[in-house]
Amino acid sequence: MTIERLHDPDIRTFASDNTAGVHPEAMAAIAAANGGHQVAYGGDAYTARLAEVVRAEFGAAAQVFPVFNGTGANVIGLTAVMPRWGSVITTSGAHLHTDEAGAPERVSGLKLLTVPTPDGKLTPELASREAWGWGDPHRPQPLAVSITQATEVGTLYTPEEVRAVAEFAHGHGMAVHLDGARIWNAAAALDLPLRAFTSDVGVDVISLGGTKNGLLGAEAIVVVDPSRAPGLEYLRKMNMQLASKMRFLSAQLLALFDGGLGLRTAAHANAMATRLRTVLERDGVKFGHPTEANGVFALVDAAVAERIRKRVRFYDWDRDAGLVRWMTAWDTTEADVDAFAAVVREELSR
Amino acid sequence: MTIERLHDPDIRTFASDNTAGVHPEAMAAIAAANGGHQVAYGGDAYTARLAEVVRAEFGAAAQVFPVFNGTGANVIGLTAVMPRWGSVITTSGAHLHTDEAGAPERVSGLKLLTVPTPDGKLTPELASREAWGWGDPHRPQPLAVSITQATEVGTLYTPEEVRAVAEFAHGHGMAVHLDGARIWNAAAALDLPLRAFTSDVGVDVISLGGTKNGLLGAEAIVVVDPSRAPGLEYLRKMNMQLASKMRFLSAQLLALFDGGLGLRTAAHANAMATRLRTVLERDGVKFGHPTEANGVFALVDAAVAERIRKRVRFYDWDRDAGLVRWMTAWDTTEADVDAFAAVVREELSR
Amino acid sequence: MTIERLHDPDIRTFASDNTAGVHPEAMAAIAAANGGHQVAYGGDAYTARLAEVVRAEFGAAAQVFPVFNGTGANVIGLTAVMPRWGSVITTSGAHLHTDEAGAPERVSGLKLLTVPTPDGKLTPELASREAWGWGDPHRPQPLAVSITQATEVGTLYTPEEVRAVAEFAHGHGMAVHLDGARIWNAAAALDLPLRAFTSDVGVDVISLGGTKNGLLGAEAIVVVDPSRAPGLEYLRKMNMQLASKMRFLSAQLLALFDGGLGLRTAAHANAMATRLRTVLERDGVKFGHPTEANGVFALVDAAVAERIRKRVRFYDWDRDAGLVRWMTAWDTTEADVDAFAAVVREELSR
Amino acid sequence: MTIERLHDPDIRTFASDNTAGVHPEAMAAIAAANGGHQVAYGGDAYTARLAEVVRAEFGAAAQVFPVFNGTGANVIGLTAVMPRWGSVITTSGAHLHTDEAGAPERVSGLKLLTVPTPDGKLTPELASREAWGWGDPHRPQPLAVSITQATEVGTLYTPEEVRAVAEFAHGHGMAVHLDGARIWNAAAALDLPLRAFTSDVGVDVISLGGTKNGLLGAEAIVVVDPSRAPGLEYLRKMNMQLASKMRFLSAQLLALFDGGLGLRTAAHANAMATRLRTVLERDGVKFGHPTEANGVFALVDAAVAERIRKRVRFYDWDRDAGLVRWMTAWDTTEADVDAFAAVVREELSR
Repeated sequence: MTIERLHDPDIRTFASDNTAGVHPEAMAAIAAANGGHQVAYGGDAYTARLAEVVRAEFGAAAQVFPVFNGTGANVIGLTAVMPRWGSVITTSGAHLHTDEAGAPERVSGLKLLTVPTPDGKLTPELASREAWGWGDPHRPQPLAVSITQATEVGTLYTPEEVRAVAEFAHGHGMAVHLDGARIWNAAAALDLPLRAFTSDVGVDVISLGGTKNGLLGAEAIVVVDPSRAPGLEYLRKMNMQLASKMRFLSAQLLALFDGGLGLRTAAHANAMATRLRTVLERDGVKFGHPTEANGVFALVDAAVAERIRKRVRFYDWDRDAGLVRWMTAWDTTEADVDAFAAVVREELSR
Repeated sequence: MTIERLHDPDIRTFASDNTAGVHPEAMAAIAAANGGHQVAYGGDAYTARLAEVVRAEFGAAAQVFPVFNGTGANVIGLTAVMPRWGSVITTSGAHLHTDEAGAPERVSGLKLLTVPTPDGKLTPELASREAWGWGDPHRPQPLAVSITQATEVGTLYTPEEVRAVAEFAHGHGMAVHLDGARIWNAAAALDLPLRAFTSDVGVDVISLGGTKNGLLGAEAIVVVDPSRAPGLEYLRKMNMQLASKMRFLSAQLLALFDGGLGLRTAAHANAMATRLRTVLERDGVKFGHPTEANGVFALVDAAVAERIRKRVRFYDWDRDAGLVRWMTAWDTTEADVDAFAAVVREELSR
Repeated sequence: MTIERLHDPDIRTFASDNTAGVHPEAMAAIAAANGGHQVAYGGDAYTARLAEVVRAEFGAAAQVFPVFNGTGANVIGLTAVMPRWGSVITTSGAHLHTDEAGAPERVSGLKLLTVPTPDGKLTPELASREAWGWGDPHRPQPLAVSITQATEVGTLYTPEEVRAVAEFAHGHGMAVHLDGARIWNAAAALDLPLRAFTSDVGVDVISLGGTKNGLLGAEAIVVVDPSRAPGLEYLRKMNMQLASKMRFLSAQLLALFDGGLGLRTAAHANAMATRLRTVLERDGVKFGHPTEANGVFALVDAAVAERIRKRVRFYDWDRDAGLVRWMTAWDTTEADVDAFAAVVREELSR
Repeated sequence: MTIERLHDPDIRTFASDNTAGVHPEAMAAIAAANGGHQVAYGGDAYTARLAEVVRAEFGAAAQVFPVFNGTGANVIGLTAVMPRWGSVITTSGAHLHTDEAGAPERVSGLKLLTVPTPDGKLTPELASREAWGWGDPHRPQPLAVSITQATEVGTLYTPEEVRAVAEFAHGHGMAVHLDGARIWNAAAALDLPLRAFTSDVGVDVISLGGTKNGLLGAEAIVVVDPSRAPGLEYLRKMNMQLASKMRFLSAQLLALFDGGLGLRTAAHANAMATRLRTVLERDGVKFGHPTEANGVFALVDAAVAERIRKRVRFYDWDRDAGLVRWMTAWDTTEADVDAFAAVVREELSR
């Protein structure tokens, strides 16, 4: 006997890739890892295999540390690449700054030095506005740069753009962190392996997303060069992100690589976003950002947006600008997109 | 296509209840919660139902906050019931002190004031050794007491013993926290509902365990009187323990209550520990603590212990005292126990 | 036998009010408090008298906590008026943000939400850009507003302007902190008692400056309504700002009030700034901000600034804008001003 | 006009060396450093000279960082020699553990691993009880050892005893910190230079006391080998211990060395403690610890202690053991000692 189903599994929204459930292959990976006893806290066969896979993808020295969520990956990853006196240069729209409730400051005392950006992307020029003051004990010391790929507004860095930021950062002794909550969407859209826009072009530490891409819940910190991130095994534990039954996190992450799930689901979500945009562009809807991954940022009158939202859930992005966000997920179907487009069309034409 | 099985599911150990996998009913609960979209971060039907269940169990005002692991539950629960200047009285053998890598200190600056105890249990007399100095700004201010049920050495508090500690604590203005990583084992062994030794007898905040009792990974903070733990929703997020796909954590926890899984699996694990002890006592093995839940603490010569360990994994508990720990889990079978007992017997008689 | 003088006491600069030494009356106050034994950590007669003086100035409930420096006053004062999940709205030019090396984040995990301002002054309109998102656990919770009086660019809030910010803040459940590193300069310039622009108009907690105004080193946290800042005596100690021989800090602060030193020295420094500006305005020098207290912000070509600096020390303020900062102090003489003006004139006319 | 004297300068107590005032030579040092402008935050002539003196005393690489108080010196010094995951082995009676209100935990997340000791002194044997578990991410990682000289109970380490602790610590990769709040009393009593029991025998970082030995308020962190304590200039600032008018802290500290004040005042205080003990031993009073520096720990019946305290202030040390603490200071006179001894004698004989 177990619990009853309490929800309607036919409901779909465009609210977030987090509202989707678990992909059947992720469930299968958990099932494969189940049964019998495995050493807790990472001494299991799945974590060992994940380490191999990560080395193959990101370089022979790379290390992987599964964690529970993106906040954990971001905060612990950044903490590990900086001494206690380091500050982080990032965009003013970074999830790290706007949506993590002050976790970097609270958990690790990390001050964020933020710069506005029109398209969610940091550049050397933008970073240089806060990249100064080393050696002055009054000035928070900028010792890392954090970028997000795909960005919070659904745009993408090319490998060359990441390289430029990384060269700027390294040239000033700063580490480079990449928040990859939607890293698979980026890889699928760019049609490039993960390493092409991370370890190959100078990223030092990566928050490797999984939960937004079909997993039940698993993310990882990938360190390209472990000598730059000492003590990560201690930091993960003392920051409360060490899973006892780690085999199940590792198995899910493994499915993204070994099973090819990561690229497949992300490519699908991206395609659904493109479909939604294409359909609505034909209807004359205007958009606030390019749709390069799985986010569609549309300019919709507030009253219309409210009417649409009553029928299908989604979030406002920037109320002053009249910008709403429609996210697709691994389980968004063409029918879902078309039905939603019809709803939008109807409410726009009322 | 998904990942391959990489481990031998027939291996069983007596190392920890964390080395066991996921109970089929927990898997079924996850499956029930899957499908379609649910509001992320706790706005789903399973988290809502869990809140009802927790109110029914712990009192009408009780609130539940699912988190990822026990460290998160312990640290955030304690943080919430104290101002920034609070310190925690606990035992010197508390998991909080010995096995959480300094997480309470690191994450929340919580100083622990510890007292040795022969049986893992705090008493008013023991607590009083550190319960002094309120109002003196030089003295860390003791504002909470933390006890573990079942304790780290497999013993149990009676409801009256918890009440005595709680009355002492409340009489001095201190909150009471119960680390319930093995709370179901305690309930099963005492044959009492959870509330009988928690909310009914003065416990203010509970770390409600799940992972050690057959779940994939889910624990919760239960607050009996929310006015004593303000801001928990913010603290959970900023301390990196807010799950996006929370429905899957809540569904697992729900299975412990609604499906009755919690008591069934714990009662089984307890019975297996009792069986192991009973069998070995007959063989003349000596033990360091009573076996009241699912832990067996045996006095075994170090060389013998090494020989046994080569055949079946387990951990030393106190090398100086010659004490080893054998834990049973939800999936330990009578055959597992008997086979292990035979191994012990063989190695003892060599 | 004691140490030798190692410096030339005739050197004067326009670098900072911190480069000046100790006013003779502050030395006399220290001497008055010396001799015999007084209870350490604040149980002395001077701290008791300071408490009386502060109540007379800021209201019958007001409490004063002497600390070592402004960073300590700012961080601990803000910490005390907020729960752990509070964030602070302040200006992007606030000393708290730019010059305290990330102390608010490091010591108390306080996230700062900053808004640019042309004149160093926050307004309800500016604050409202970051004053939103209460109740959303992802959003850092804005629970305090911090303003600086006199501001970092030498401008002043009128009492009505402070009141407007305070009403806005209180209307949203936020506390109001005033960084008064140069509070005496503000009082002298406004010709108003301290309370007129602090406790009378809604400020909840004040960093009361002393060191920049002739003291050897003493600042204080003044809490207008102690029920809004519980635990300050513990927070001061555990944040390392409790002085053992507190009588000497309190005696210095007392001299600012009882001896009238605070207003006298600040009025003098202000007058010297006005003199400098008036003289140079006549020579055609342009300025970047009004000179309302003891700071003069001049627009000077970088090469000229370097030549001036070789003769008399001062700091750049905004290199891109060509803005330099000339601060006067309690010991700046009319002759110092005139000599410096002559230097500026000479270098400008080369 | 300045403030009035508010206290009776003839009162003397045996409560703490903190209750004494400022030695005339410390006042003279402050006066010498006064006048004119000096670069703030340590760019002055006195801080430069102090650096020279410290190099001469502690070794050519040694660095000195003046701070405000002992808590600041202890916490920041320890923080600097350890990564974020380091814990500190110290005695259960260490000031760091008992009297700093949890500052190490609160400010730096430093967990203390404490061991009881009969005489206030750590040994390799005692330290080894907590010196284990490196590499295990669940175990707080012991990465520093902290000892106090003179100890909290007035005893002294010989250089050989310090060396033994240091060799043990270094042999396990742990740094050695010495809390020298009463380091001058130790040097005077041992008749040795400071380096003989610090840098010469393996101490890595020293909290160099001054306030308890006649200064108005000044302590310093001395780092023997700066490569082991990177970032101290940032840590001091961001932990709120950077003095703007640092010349006055440095001048006071300089007087301890250049003026010979440190040894003279400490030797005097020590002699007064010895005199008190000698006198009272003759009267049959019993003592709980040897009197090796300036603390006298006497066994006195509680009722008698209360009667004595009504006439002359002092503190209980251990109520259960009937132990009181009588501290002498730089300004304790022979007449003070004899008068106090007479009071004790009178109350004992009632």
